[in-house]
Amino acid sequence: MVRVGGVTVSERSVGQNAQLALLLEVSGTPKPGNVDREREYDDLRFEHFLAGAVGARPGLDRAAAGDPLGPAFEAAVEGMAGQSGGNTQFGALLVLTPLVAAAADERLSPSGVDTVVRESTVEDAAAFYRAFEHVDVAVDDPPDGLEPLDVRRGSDAVPELRARELTLFDVMESSADVDGVAAEWVSGFERVFEASEWLLEGSGSVADRASDVFLELLAADPDTFVVTRQDRETAEEVQTRAQAVLDGDEDATDLAEEFVERDINPGTTADIVAGALFVALERGLEV
Amino acid sequence: MVRVGGVTVSERSVGQNAQLALLLEVSGTPKPGNVDREREYDDLRFEHFLAGAVGARPGLDRAAAGDPLGPAFEAAVEGMAGQSGGNTQFGALLVLTPLVAAAADERLSPSGVDTVVRESTVEDAAAFYRAFEHVDVAVDDPPDGLEPLDVRRGSDAVPELRARELTLFDVMESSADVDGVAAEWVSGFERVFEASEWLLEGSGSVADRASDVFLELLAADPDTFVVTRQDRETAEEVQTRAQAVLDGDEDATDLAEEFVERDINPGTTADIVAGALFVALERGLEV
Repeated sequence: MVRVGGVTVSERSVGQNAQLALLLEVSGTPKPGNVDREREYDDLRFEHFLAGAVGARPGLDRAAAGDPLGPAFEAAVEGMAGQSGGNTQFGALLVLTPLVAAAADERLSPSGVDTVVRESTVEDAAAFYRAFEHVDVAVDDPPDGLEPLDVRRGSDAVPELRARELTLFDVMESSADVDGVAAEWVSGFERVFEASEWLLEGSGSVADRASDVFLELLAADPDTFVVTRQDRETAEEVQTRAQAVLDGDEDATDLAEEFVERDINPGTTADIVAGALFVALERGLEV
Repeated sequence: MVRVGGVTVSERSVGQNAQLALLLEVSGTPKPGNVDREREYDDLRFEHFLAGAVGARPGLDRAAAGDPLGPAFEAAVEGMAGQSGGNTQFGALLVLTPLVAAAADERLSPSGVDTVVRESTVEDAAAFYRAFEHVDVAVDDPPDGLEPLDVRRGSDAVPELRARELTLFDVMESSADVDGVAAEWVSGFERVFEASEWLLEGSGSVADRASDVFLELLAADPDTFVVTRQDRETAEEVQTRAQAVLDGDEDATDLAEEFVERDINPGTTADIVAGALFVALERGLEV
Protein backbone atom coordinates (compact mmCIF):
# COMPACT_ATOMS: atom_id res chain seq x y z
CA MET A 1 0.00 0.00 0.00
CA VAL A 2 1.18 3.55 -0.61
CA ARG A 3 -0.14 6.73 0.93
CA VAL A 4 -0.97 9.54 -1.49
CA GLY A 5 -2.05 12.83 0.05
CA GLY A 6 -3.04 11.11 3.26
CA VAL A 7 -5.15 8.49 1.49
CA THR A 8 -4.09 4.86 1.36
CA VAL A 9 -4.15 3.72 -2.23
CA SER A 10 -3.86 0.15 -3.36
CA GLU A 11 -0.90 -0.72 -5.54
CA ARG A 12 -3.02 -3.41 -7.12
CA SER A 13 -4.04 -2.96 -10.74
CA VAL A 14 -7.69 -2.46 -11.64
CA GLY A 15 -7.87 -6.07 -12.84
CA GLN A 16 -6.33 -7.29 -9.58
CA ASN A 17 -8.89 -5.36 -7.54
CA ALA A 18 -11.70 -6.86 -9.61
CA GLN A 19 -10.33 -10.35 -9.03
CA LEU A 20 -9.92 -9.65 -5.31
CA ALA A 21 -13.52 -8.38 -5.17
CA LEU A 22 -14.73 -11.73 -6.53
CA LEU A 23 -12.64 -13.59 -3.94
CA LEU A 24 -13.73 -11.40 -1.04
CA GLU A 25 -17.37 -11.66 -2.07
CA VAL A 26 -17.44 -15.43 -1.75
CA SER A 27 -15.47 -15.25 1.52
CA GLY A 28 -18.00 -13.19 3.46
CA THR A 29 -19.86 -15.38 5.93
CA PRO A 30 -22.65 -15.94 6.78
CA LYS A 31 -24.35 -14.92 3.56
CA PRO A 32 -27.71 -16.68 3.77
CA GLY A 33 -28.34 -18.94 0.78
CA ASN A 34 -25.10 -18.36 -1.04
CA VAL A 35 -21.90 -20.33 -1.14
CA ASP A 36 -19.56 -18.88 1.43
CA ARG A 37 -16.54 -19.99 3.39
CA GLU A 38 -18.57 -22.25 5.64
CA ARG A 39 -21.41 -23.41 3.40
CA GLU A 40 -21.44 -24.93 -0.03
CA TYR A 41 -23.54 -27.17 -2.23
CA ASP A 42 -22.28 -30.63 -3.23
CA ASP A 43 -21.94 -29.61 -6.85
CA LEU A 44 -21.20 -25.90 -6.36
CA ARG A 45 -18.34 -25.48 -3.95
CA PHE A 46 -16.23 -22.69 -2.55
CA GLU A 47 -13.29 -23.88 -4.65
CA HIS A 48 -15.33 -23.43 -7.85
CA PHE A 49 -15.63 -19.74 -7.04
CA LEU A 50 -11.86 -19.52 -6.45
CA ALA A 51 -11.20 -21.13 -9.83
CA GLY A 52 -13.85 -18.88 -11.39
CA ALA A 53 -12.08 -15.79 -10.08
CA VAL A 54 -8.73 -17.05 -11.39
CA GLY A 55 -10.18 -17.86 -14.80
CA ALA A 56 -12.10 -14.60 -15.19
CA ARG A 57 -9.02 -12.44 -14.79
CA PRO A 58 -7.87 -12.19 -18.43
CA GLY A 59 -11.32 -10.92 -19.44
CA LEU A 60 -11.32 -8.39 -16.62
CA ASP A 61 -7.85 -7.28 -17.72
CA ARG A 62 -9.19 -6.78 -21.24
CA ALA A 63 -11.91 -4.49 -19.88
CA ALA A 64 -9.21 -2.58 -17.98
CA ALA A 65 -7.15 -2.30 -21.17
CA GLY A 66 -10.01 -0.56 -22.97
CA ASP A 67 -11.38 -3.48 -24.98
CA PRO A 68 -15.10 -3.17 -25.79
CA LEU A 69 -17.40 -4.26 -22.95
CA GLY A 70 -19.05 -7.19 -24.69
CA PRO A 71 -15.96 -9.11 -25.83
CA ALA A 72 -14.23 -8.42 -22.48
CA PHE A 73 -17.27 -9.75 -20.64
CA GLU A 74 -17.48 -12.79 -22.89
CA ALA A 75 -13.79 -13.57 -22.28
CA ALA A 76 -14.28 -13.21 -18.53
CA VAL A 77 -17.25 -15.59 -18.60
CA GLU A 78 -15.42 -18.11 -20.76
CA GLY A 79 -12.48 -18.10 -18.34
CA MET A 80 -14.77 -18.22 -15.30
CA ALA A 81 -16.49 -21.28 -16.74
CA GLY A 82 -13.23 -23.28 -16.82
CA GLN A 83 -14.10 -25.20 -13.67
CA SER A 84 -16.53 -28.01 -12.98
CA GLY A 85 -19.05 -26.14 -10.81
CA GLY A 86 -20.84 -24.38 -13.66
CA ASN A 87 -22.02 -20.81 -13.33
CA THR A 88 -20.27 -19.18 -10.40
CA GLN A 89 -19.92 -15.51 -11.27
CA PHE A 90 -21.78 -14.65 -14.51
CA GLY A 91 -23.81 -11.89 -12.86
CA ALA A 92 -20.90 -10.57 -10.84
CA LEU A 93 -18.84 -10.25 -14.04
CA LEU A 94 -21.71 -8.41 -15.73
CA VAL A 95 -21.60 -5.93 -12.84
CA LEU A 96 -17.81 -5.72 -12.75
CA THR A 97 -16.98 -5.35 -16.45
CA PRO A 98 -18.31 -1.77 -16.91
CA LEU A 99 -17.02 -0.75 -13.46
CA VAL A 100 -13.54 -2.00 -14.43
CA ALA A 101 -13.71 -0.13 -17.74
CA ALA A 102 -14.75 3.05 -15.92
CA ALA A 103 -12.05 2.68 -13.25
CA ALA A 104 -9.31 2.12 -15.84
CA ASP A 105 -10.50 5.28 -17.53
CA GLU A 106 -10.46 7.18 -14.21
CA ARG A 107 -14.18 7.77 -14.24
CA LEU A 108 -15.37 5.35 -11.55
CA SER A 109 -18.50 7.26 -10.52
CA PRO A 110 -22.22 6.80 -11.20
CA SER A 111 -22.09 9.24 -14.09
CA GLY A 112 -18.78 7.85 -15.38
CA VAL A 113 -19.97 4.28 -15.54
CA ASP A 114 -23.31 5.45 -16.93
CA THR A 115 -21.41 6.95 -19.85
CA VAL A 116 -19.49 3.70 -20.29
CA VAL A 117 -22.60 1.52 -20.51
CA ARG A 118 -24.47 3.96 -22.75
CA GLU A 119 -21.54 3.81 -25.21
CA SER A 120 -22.04 0.06 -25.61
CA THR A 121 -22.75 -1.20 -29.12
CA VAL A 122 -24.68 -3.85 -31.00
CA GLU A 123 -21.45 -5.87 -31.19
CA ASP A 124 -21.24 -5.74 -27.39
CA ALA A 125 -24.78 -7.13 -27.27
CA ALA A 126 -23.74 -9.92 -29.67
CA ALA A 127 -20.81 -10.87 -27.42
CA PHE A 128 -23.11 -10.82 -24.40
CA TYR A 129 -25.37 -13.33 -26.13
CA ARG A 130 -22.39 -15.49 -27.08
CA ALA A 131 -21.36 -15.54 -23.41
CA PHE A 132 -24.44 -17.66 -22.65
CA GLU A 133 -22.91 -20.43 -24.77
CA HIS A 134 -20.06 -20.87 -22.28
CA VAL A 135 -22.15 -21.67 -19.23
CA ASP A 136 -25.71 -22.49 -18.13
CA VAL A 137 -27.33 -19.45 -16.58
CA ALA A 138 -30.73 -19.61 -14.90
CA VAL A 139 -32.99 -17.14 -16.72
CA ASP A 140 -36.71 -16.60 -17.13
CA ASP A 141 -38.62 -17.03 -20.36
CA PRO A 142 -38.58 -13.76 -22.30
CA PRO A 143 -41.74 -11.60 -22.43
CA ASP A 144 -44.24 -12.23 -25.26
CA GLY A 145 -42.89 -11.08 -28.59
CA LEU A 146 -39.28 -11.19 -27.45
CA GLU A 147 -38.73 -14.93 -28.00
CA PRO A 148 -36.26 -14.24 -30.86
CA LEU A 149 -34.11 -12.42 -28.31
CA ASP A 150 -34.14 -15.17 -25.66
CA VAL A 151 -30.57 -15.12 -24.30
CA ARG A 152 -30.58 -18.91 -24.26
CA ARG A 153 -30.44 -18.79 -28.07
CA GLY A 154 -26.86 -17.53 -27.74
CA SER A 155 -25.33 -16.49 -31.04
CA ASP A 156 -28.47 -17.62 -32.90
CA ALA A 157 -30.09 -14.44 -31.64
CA VAL A 158 -27.38 -12.19 -33.06
CA PRO A 159 -29.02 -11.55 -36.47
CA GLU A 160 -32.15 -10.42 -34.62
CA LEU A 161 -30.04 -8.07 -32.44
CA ARG A 162 -28.46 -6.59 -35.54
CA ALA A 163 -31.82 -6.25 -37.33
CA ARG A 164 -33.25 -4.37 -34.37
CA GLU A 165 -29.97 -2.43 -33.80
CA LEU A 166 -30.03 -3.26 -30.12
CA THR A 167 -26.95 -2.28 -28.09
CA LEU A 168 -25.95 -4.06 -24.89
CA PHE A 169 -27.40 -1.11 -22.98
CA ASP A 170 -30.71 -1.59 -24.83
CA VAL A 171 -30.70 -5.28 -23.92
CA MET A 172 -30.14 -4.43 -20.27
CA GLU A 173 -32.82 -1.77 -20.35
CA SER A 174 -35.34 -4.30 -21.64
CA SER A 175 -34.88 -6.51 -18.59
CA ALA A 176 -34.15 -3.91 -15.93
CA ASP A 177 -37.55 -4.46 -14.34
CA VAL A 178 -36.96 -8.19 -13.78
CA ASP A 179 -33.19 -8.43 -13.32
CA GLY A 180 -31.28 -6.70 -10.54
CA VAL A 181 -28.01 -6.61 -12.47
CA ALA A 182 -29.68 -5.04 -15.52
CA ALA A 183 -31.30 -2.54 -13.15
CA GLU A 184 -27.80 -1.47 -12.05
CA TRP A 185 -26.74 -0.97 -15.66
CA VAL A 186 -29.54 1.52 -16.29
CA SER A 187 -29.35 3.37 -12.96
CA GLY A 188 -25.69 4.40 -12.78
CA PHE A 189 -25.02 1.36 -10.56
CA GLU A 190 -26.92 3.01 -7.76
CA ARG A 191 -27.00 0.11 -5.31
CA VAL A 192 -23.36 -0.79 -6.03
CA PHE A 193 -22.10 2.70 -5.21
CA GLU A 194 -24.32 2.98 -2.14
CA ALA A 195 -23.13 -0.38 -0.80
CA SER A 196 -19.51 0.58 -1.48
CA GLU A 197 -19.95 3.48 0.96
CA TRP A 198 -21.24 1.08 3.61
CA LEU A 199 -18.15 -1.08 3.09
CA LEU A 200 -15.83 1.91 3.44
CA GLU A 201 -17.64 3.17 6.55
CA GLY A 202 -17.71 -0.26 8.21
CA SER A 203 -15.16 -1.69 10.60
CA GLY A 204 -13.65 -5.10 11.18
CA SER A 205 -12.55 -7.59 8.56
CA VAL A 206 -13.58 -6.97 4.96
CA ALA A 207 -15.22 -10.41 4.86
CA ASP A 208 -17.44 -9.48 7.81
CA ARG A 209 -18.33 -6.16 6.22
CA ALA A 210 -19.23 -7.97 2.98
CA SER A 211 -21.55 -10.26 4.94
CA ASP A 212 -23.20 -7.27 6.67
CA VAL A 213 -23.67 -5.39 3.41
CA PHE A 214 -25.11 -8.51 1.79
CA LEU A 215 -27.79 -8.69 4.50
CA GLU A 216 -28.57 -4.96 4.23
CA LEU A 217 -29.07 -5.25 0.47
CA LEU A 218 -31.09 -8.44 0.83
CA ALA A 219 -33.45 -6.78 3.29
CA ALA A 220 -33.87 -3.72 1.08
CA ASP A 221 -35.06 -5.33 -2.17
CA PRO A 222 -36.29 -8.72 -3.43
CA ASP A 223 -33.45 -10.70 -5.03
CA THR A 224 -34.31 -11.16 -8.70
CA PHE A 225 -32.35 -14.40 -9.01
CA VAL A 226 -34.62 -15.90 -6.32
CA VAL A 227 -37.63 -14.57 -8.25
CA THR A 228 -36.31 -16.33 -11.38
CA ARG A 229 -35.43 -19.67 -9.78
CA GLN A 230 -38.27 -19.81 -7.25
CA ASP A 231 -40.90 -17.06 -7.32
CA ARG A 232 -41.68 -13.57 -6.09
CA GLU A 233 -43.29 -14.86 -2.91
CA THR A 234 -40.06 -16.63 -1.92
CA ALA A 235 -38.00 -13.55 -2.78
CA GLU A 236 -40.23 -11.47 -0.51
CA GLU A 237 -39.87 -14.01 2.29
CA VAL A 238 -36.07 -13.81 1.87
CA GLN A 239 -36.27 -10.03 2.13
CA THR A 240 -38.43 -10.14 5.28
CA ARG A 241 -36.20 -12.68 6.97
CA ALA A 242 -33.01 -10.78 6.15
CA GLN A 243 -34.63 -7.81 7.89
CA ALA A 244 -35.40 -10.07 10.87
CA VAL A 245 -31.69 -10.92 11.09
CA LEU A 246 -30.81 -7.21 11.04
CA ASP A 247 -33.41 -6.60 13.77
CA GLY A 248 -31.88 -9.36 15.89
CA ASP A 249 -35.00 -11.53 15.63
CA GLU A 250 -33.36 -14.31 13.60
CA ASP A 251 -29.90 -15.85 13.63
CA ALA A 252 -27.93 -15.31 10.41
CA THR A 253 -26.18 -18.67 10.59
CA ASP A 254 -29.44 -20.58 11.11
CA LEU A 255 -31.00 -18.70 8.22
CA ALA A 256 -27.98 -19.53 6.04
CA GLU A 257 -28.36 -23.24 6.82
CA GLU A 258 -32.09 -23.12 6.06
CA PHE A 259 -31.69 -21.31 2.75
CA VAL A 260 -28.96 -23.72 1.60
CA GLU A 261 -31.27 -26.59 2.58
CA ARG A 262 -34.10 -25.06 0.53
CA ASP A 263 -31.74 -24.19 -2.37
CA ILE A 264 -32.63 -20.51 -2.07
CA ASN A 265 -29.70 -18.65 -3.56
CA PRO A 266 -29.89 -14.83 -3.62
CA GLY A 267 -27.25 -14.58 -6.30
CA THR A 268 -28.13 -11.13 -7.64
CA THR A 269 -27.50 -9.60 -4.24
CA ALA A 270 -24.10 -11.31 -4.19
CA ASP A 271 -23.36 -9.81 -7.63
CA ILE A 272 -24.08 -6.32 -6.28
CA VAL A 273 -21.76 -6.99 -3.31
CA ALA A 274 -18.96 -8.02 -5.68
CA GLY A 275 -19.36 -4.72 -7.53
CA ALA A 276 -19.44 -2.78 -4.27
CA LEU A 277 -16.27 -4.51 -3.05
CA PHE A 278 -14.52 -3.53 -6.28
CA VAL A 279 -15.54 0.12 -5.97
CA ALA A 280 -14.52 0.17 -2.30
CA LEU A 281 -11.11 -1.38 -3.09
CA GLU A 282 -10.53 1.20 -5.81
CA ARG A 283 -11.44 3.90 -3.30
CA GLY A 284 -8.98 2.72 -0.68
CA LEU A 285 -10.65 -0.08 1.30
CA GLU A 286 -7.68 -1.74 2.98
CA VAL A 287 -7.26 -5.52 3.02
CA MET B 1 -11.43 -28.05 -19.28
CA VAL B 2 -10.43 -29.87 -22.43
CA ARG B 3 -9.77 -33.57 -22.89
CA VAL B 4 -6.53 -34.49 -24.63
CA GLY B 5 -5.96 -38.18 -25.28
CA GLY B 6 -8.38 -39.16 -22.54
CA VAL B 7 -6.73 -36.89 -19.96
CA THR B 8 -8.48 -33.79 -18.68
CA VAL B 9 -6.13 -30.86 -19.06
CA SER B 10 -6.66 -27.47 -17.51
CA GLU B 11 -6.99 -24.56 -19.87
CA ARG B 12 -5.53 -22.35 -17.15
CA SER B 13 -2.08 -20.90 -17.74
CA VAL B 14 0.83 -21.99 -15.55
CA GLY B 15 0.59 -18.70 -13.64
CA GLN B 16 -3.14 -19.20 -13.13
CA ASN B 17 -2.59 -22.69 -11.75
CA ALA B 18 0.04 -21.34 -9.35
CA GLN B 19 -2.37 -18.66 -8.15
CA LEU B 20 -5.16 -21.20 -7.78
CA ALA B 21 -2.82 -23.46 -5.78
CA LEU B 22 -2.26 -20.61 -3.30
CA LEU B 23 -6.01 -20.06 -3.01
CA LEU B 24 -6.84 -23.74 -2.63
CA GLU B 25 -4.10 -24.19 -0.03
CA VAL B 26 -5.60 -21.64 2.32
CA SER B 27 -9.10 -23.02 1.69
CA GLY B 28 -8.43 -26.54 2.96
CA THR B 29 -10.00 -27.01 6.38
CA PRO B 30 -9.28 -28.06 9.06
CA LYS B 31 -5.55 -27.50 8.80
CA PRO B 32 -4.42 -27.48 12.43
CA GLY B 33 -2.57 -24.29 13.35
CA ASN B 34 -2.84 -22.52 10.03
CA VAL B 35 -5.23 -19.93 8.75
CA ASP B 36 -7.98 -21.70 6.89
CA ARG B 37 -11.54 -21.01 5.84
CA GLU B 38 -12.85 -21.37 9.36
CA ARG B 39 -9.97 -20.18 11.51
CA GLU B 40 -7.89 -17.05 11.43
CA TYR B 41 -5.83 -14.84 13.68
CA ASP B 42 -6.97 -11.27 14.48
CA ASP B 43 -4.09 -9.78 12.55
CA LEU B 44 -3.61 -12.53 9.97
CA ARG B 45 -6.88 -13.29 8.27
CA PHE B 46 -8.16 -15.44 5.45
CA GLU B 47 -8.63 -12.33 3.32
CA HIS B 48 -4.93 -11.46 3.64
CA PHE B 49 -4.10 -14.75 1.94
CA LEU B 50 -6.59 -13.98 -0.87
CA ALA B 51 -4.97 -10.58 -1.41
CA GLY B 52 -1.53 -12.20 -1.19
CA ALA B 53 -2.45 -14.64 -3.97
CA VAL B 54 -3.79 -11.79 -6.12
CA GLY B 55 -0.67 -9.69 -5.55
CA ALA B 56 1.81 -12.52 -6.15
CA ARG B 57 0.53 -13.28 -9.61
CA PRO B 58 2.71 -10.92 -11.69
CA GLY B 59 5.83 -12.44 -10.13
CA LEU B 60 4.59 -15.95 -10.80
CA ASP B 61 3.84 -14.94 -14.39
CA ARG B 62 7.43 -13.68 -14.70
CA ALA B 63 8.70 -17.10 -13.61
CA ALA B 64 6.41 -18.69 -16.21
CA ALA B 65 7.75 -16.32 -18.86
CA GLY B 66 11.29 -17.50 -18.25
CA ASP B 67 12.59 -14.66 -16.10
CA PRO B 68 15.38 -15.67 -13.72
CA LEU B 69 14.16 -17.33 -10.52
CA GLY B 70 15.40 -14.73 -8.04
CA PRO B 71 13.85 -11.61 -9.59
CA ALA B 72 10.59 -13.48 -10.31
CA PHE B 73 10.46 -14.63 -6.69
CA GLU B 74 11.25 -11.14 -5.41
CA ALA B 75 8.45 -9.67 -7.56
CA ALA B 76 6.01 -12.31 -6.30
CA VAL B 77 6.93 -11.54 -2.69
CA GLU B 78 6.67 -7.81 -3.22
CA GLY B 79 3.19 -8.24 -4.72
CA MET B 80 2.14 -10.72 -2.03
CA ALA B 81 3.15 -8.21 0.64
CA GLY B 82 0.70 -5.57 -0.68
CA GLN B 83 -1.85 -6.33 2.05
CA SER B 84 -1.95 -5.50 5.72
CA GLY B 85 -1.54 -9.01 7.18
CA GLY B 86 2.21 -9.23 6.65
CA ASN B 87 3.85 -12.45 5.53
CA THR B 88 1.22 -14.76 4.14
CA GLN B 89 2.94 -16.82 1.44
CA PHE B 90 6.72 -16.20 1.37
CA GLY B 91 7.56 -19.88 1.79
CA ALA B 92 4.85 -21.03 -0.60
CA LEU B 93 6.22 -18.69 -3.28
CA LEU B 94 9.72 -20.03 -2.70
CA VAL B 95 8.34 -23.50 -3.39
CA LEU B 96 6.22 -22.41 -6.35
CA THR B 97 8.67 -20.22 -8.28
CA PRO B 98 10.98 -23.03 -9.51
CA LEU B 99 8.01 -25.35 -10.08
CA VAL B 100 6.36 -22.70 -12.24
CA ALA B 101 9.58 -22.17 -14.19
CA ALA B 102 9.89 -25.92 -14.75
CA ALA B 103 6.23 -26.29 -15.77
CA ALA B 104 6.45 -23.43 -18.25
CA ASP B 105 9.49 -25.16 -19.73
CA GLU B 106 7.61 -28.48 -19.90
CA ARG B 107 9.91 -30.19 -17.45
CA LEU B 108 7.74 -30.40 -14.34
CA SER B 109 9.36 -33.48 -12.82
CA PRO B 110 11.80 -34.00 -9.93
CA SER B 111 14.74 -34.04 -12.31
CA GLY B 112 13.39 -31.14 -14.36
CA VAL B 113 12.95 -28.83 -11.41
CA ASP B 114 16.28 -30.02 -9.99
CA THR B 115 17.92 -28.74 -13.17
CA VAL B 116 16.04 -25.45 -12.83
CA VAL B 117 17.21 -24.78 -9.28
CA ARG B 118 20.81 -25.88 -9.96
CA GLU B 119 20.96 -23.33 -12.81
CA SER B 120 20.24 -20.52 -10.34
CA THR B 121 22.85 -17.77 -10.10
CA VAL B 122 24.46 -15.38 -7.64
CA GLU B 123 22.08 -12.69 -8.94
CA ASP B 124 19.15 -14.95 -8.05
CA ALA B 125 20.56 -15.19 -4.54
CA ALA B 126 20.83 -11.40 -4.38
CA ALA B 127 17.17 -11.03 -5.37
CA PHE B 128 16.19 -13.63 -2.77
CA TYR B 129 17.92 -11.54 -0.10
CA ARG B 130 16.22 -8.39 -1.34
CA ALA B 131 12.86 -10.15 -1.03
CA PHE B 132 13.30 -10.09 2.76
CA GLU B 133 13.08 -6.30 2.62
CA HIS B 134 9.45 -6.48 1.46
CA VAL B 135 8.05 -8.40 4.41
CA ASP B 136 8.95 -9.65 7.89
CA VAL B 137 9.74 -13.36 7.79
CA ALA B 138 10.32 -15.38 10.94
CA VAL B 139 13.81 -16.89 10.62
CA ASP B 140 16.39 -18.32 13.00
CA ASP B 141 19.74 -16.76 13.73
CA PRO B 142 22.30 -17.99 11.20
CA PRO B 143 24.90 -20.56 12.29
CA ASP B 144 28.22 -19.31 13.70
CA GLY B 145 30.38 -17.74 11.03
CA LEU B 146 27.44 -17.09 8.70
CA GLU B 147 26.27 -13.83 10.35
CA PRO B 148 27.28 -11.80 7.25
CA LEU B 149 24.76 -13.90 5.30
CA ASP B 150 21.85 -13.46 7.71
CA VAL B 151 18.85 -13.10 5.39
CA ARG B 152 17.50 -10.35 7.63
CA ARG B 153 20.32 -8.13 6.35
CA GLY B 154 18.50 -8.03 3.00
CA SER B 155 20.50 -6.32 0.27
CA ASP B 156 23.27 -5.46 2.76
CA ALA B 157 24.32 -9.10 2.48
CA VAL B 158 24.63 -8.97 -1.31
CA PRO B 159 28.34 -7.98 -1.46
CA GLU B 160 29.09 -10.98 0.77
CA LEU B 161 27.09 -13.27 -1.54
CA ARG B 162 29.04 -11.98 -4.52
CA ALA B 163 32.38 -12.33 -2.72
CA ARG B 164 31.62 -15.93 -1.89
CA GLU B 165 30.00 -16.56 -5.31
CA LEU B 166 26.96 -18.15 -3.71
CA THR B 167 24.07 -19.02 -5.99
CA LEU B 168 20.48 -19.25 -4.76
CA PHE B 169 20.87 -23.04 -4.84
CA ASP B 170 23.97 -22.73 -2.61
CA VAL B 171 22.00 -20.57 -0.18
CA MET B 172 19.22 -23.14 -0.02
CA GLU B 173 21.72 -25.96 0.40
CA SER B 174 23.23 -24.22 3.42
CA SER B 175 19.91 -24.22 5.27
CA ALA B 176 18.39 -27.44 3.97
CA ASP B 177 18.92 -29.15 7.32
CA VAL B 178 16.89 -26.55 9.23
CA ASP B 179 14.35 -25.35 6.66
CA GLY B 180 11.77 -27.60 5.03
CA VAL B 181 11.42 -25.41 1.95
CA ALA B 182 15.18 -25.33 1.38
CA ALA B 183 15.17 -29.12 1.83
CA GLU B 184 12.75 -29.34 -1.11
CA TRP B 185 15.03 -27.24 -3.26
CA VAL B 186 17.94 -29.64 -2.82
CA SER B 187 15.95 -32.89 -3.05
CA GLY B 188 14.13 -32.49 -6.36
CA PHE B 189 11.02 -31.34 -4.43
CA GLU B 190 10.57 -34.87 -3.15
CA ARG B 191 7.77 -34.19 -0.66
CA VAL B 192 5.95 -31.88 -3.09
CA PHE B 193 5.83 -34.49 -5.84
CA GLU B 194 4.86 -37.26 -3.43
CA ALA B 195 2.03 -35.16 -1.96
CA SER B 196 0.83 -34.23 -5.46
CA GLU B 197 0.25 -37.95 -6.10
CA TRP B 198 -1.85 -38.18 -2.94
CA LEU B 199 -3.93 -35.23 -4.16
CA LEU B 200 -4.48 -36.85 -7.55
CA GLU B 201 -5.37 -40.21 -6.00
CA GLY B 202 -7.76 -38.69 -3.44
CA SER B 203 -11.47 -38.20 -3.82
CA GLY B 204 -13.93 -35.51 -2.79
CA SER B 205 -13.41 -31.78 -2.93
CA VAL B 206 -9.93 -30.47 -3.59
CA ALA B 207 -10.10 -28.45 -0.37
CA ASP B 208 -10.76 -31.63 1.63
CA ARG B 209 -7.93 -33.43 -0.10
CA ALA B 210 -5.61 -30.52 0.68
CA SER B 211 -6.56 -30.77 4.34
CA ASP B 212 -5.92 -34.54 4.35
CA VAL B 213 -2.55 -34.16 2.65
CA PHE B 214 -1.59 -31.42 5.08
CA LEU B 215 -2.20 -33.80 7.99
CA GLU B 216 -0.28 -36.64 6.31
CA LEU B 217 2.74 -34.39 5.75
CA LEU B 218 2.51 -32.94 9.25
CA ALA B 219 2.54 -36.42 10.79
CA ALA B 220 5.50 -37.49 8.66
CA ASP B 221 8.07 -34.82 9.55
CA PRO B 222 8.53 -32.02 12.08
CA ASP B 223 7.48 -28.64 10.65
CA THR B 224 10.58 -26.45 10.49
CA PHE B 225 8.58 -23.23 10.82
CA VAL B 226 7.33 -24.47 14.20
CA VAL B 227 10.93 -25.34 15.13
CA THR B 228 11.94 -21.77 14.23
CA ARG B 229 9.10 -19.98 16.00
CA GLN B 230 8.73 -22.32 18.97
CA ASP B 231 11.20 -25.19 19.32
CA ARG B 232 11.90 -28.74 18.22
CA GLU B 233 9.98 -30.22 21.13
CA THR B 234 6.81 -28.39 20.02
CA ALA B 235 7.35 -29.44 16.41
CA GLU B 236 7.61 -33.06 17.54
CA GLU B 237 4.44 -32.72 19.58
CA VAL B 238 2.70 -31.33 16.47
CA GLN B 239 3.90 -34.32 14.48
CA THR B 240 2.69 -36.82 17.10
CA ARG B 241 -0.68 -35.20 17.40
CA ALA B 242 -1.21 -35.01 13.64
CA GLN B 243 -0.60 -38.76 13.62
CA ALA B 244 -3.18 -39.12 16.42
CA VAL B 245 -5.73 -37.37 14.18
CA LEU B 246 -4.91 -39.75 11.33
CA ASP B 247 -5.30 -42.68 13.73
CA GLY B 248 -8.70 -41.40 14.83
CA ASP B 249 -7.50 -40.72 18.37
CA GLU B 250 -7.85 -36.91 18.17
CA ASP B 251 -10.34 -34.64 16.47
CA ALA B 252 -8.82 -32.47 13.72
CA THR B 253 -11.08 -29.51 14.43
CA ASP B 254 -10.31 -29.51 18.16
CA LEU B 255 -6.62 -29.73 17.39
CA ALA B 256 -6.95 -26.83 14.95
CA GLU B 257 -8.59 -24.69 17.65
CA GLU B 258 -5.89 -25.60 20.17
CA PHE B 259 -3.00 -24.84 17.82
CA VAL B 260 -4.48 -21.48 16.85
CA GLU B 261 -4.91 -20.73 20.58
CA ARG B 262 -1.25 -21.63 21.22
CA ASP B 263 -0.10 -19.74 18.08
CA ILE B 264 1.45 -22.92 16.66
CA ASN B 265 1.56 -22.40 12.92
CA PRO B 266 3.01 -25.23 10.80
CA GLY B 267 3.64 -22.94 7.87
CA THR B 268 6.31 -24.98 6.12
CA THR B 269 3.92 -27.89 5.75
CA ALA B 270 1.38 -25.50 4.19
CA ASP B 271 4.08 -24.33 1.75
CA ILE B 272 4.66 -27.92 0.63
CA VAL B 273 0.89 -28.39 0.16
CA ALA B 274 0.75 -25.28 -2.04
CA GLY B 275 3.50 -26.74 -4.23
CA ALA B 276 1.75 -30.12 -4.34
CA LEU B 277 -1.53 -28.49 -5.37
CA PHE B 278 0.23 -26.70 -8.21
CA VAL B 279 1.83 -29.91 -9.50
CA ALA B 280 -1.49 -31.75 -9.21
CA LEU B 281 -3.33 -28.98 -11.10
CA GLU B 282 -0.72 -29.07 -13.86
CA ARG B 283 -1.19 -32.85 -14.01
CA GLY B 284 -4.96 -32.68 -14.40
CA LEU B 285 -6.46 -32.35 -10.92
CA GLU B 286 -9.96 -31.11 -11.68
CA VAL B 287 -11.51 -28.22 -9.76
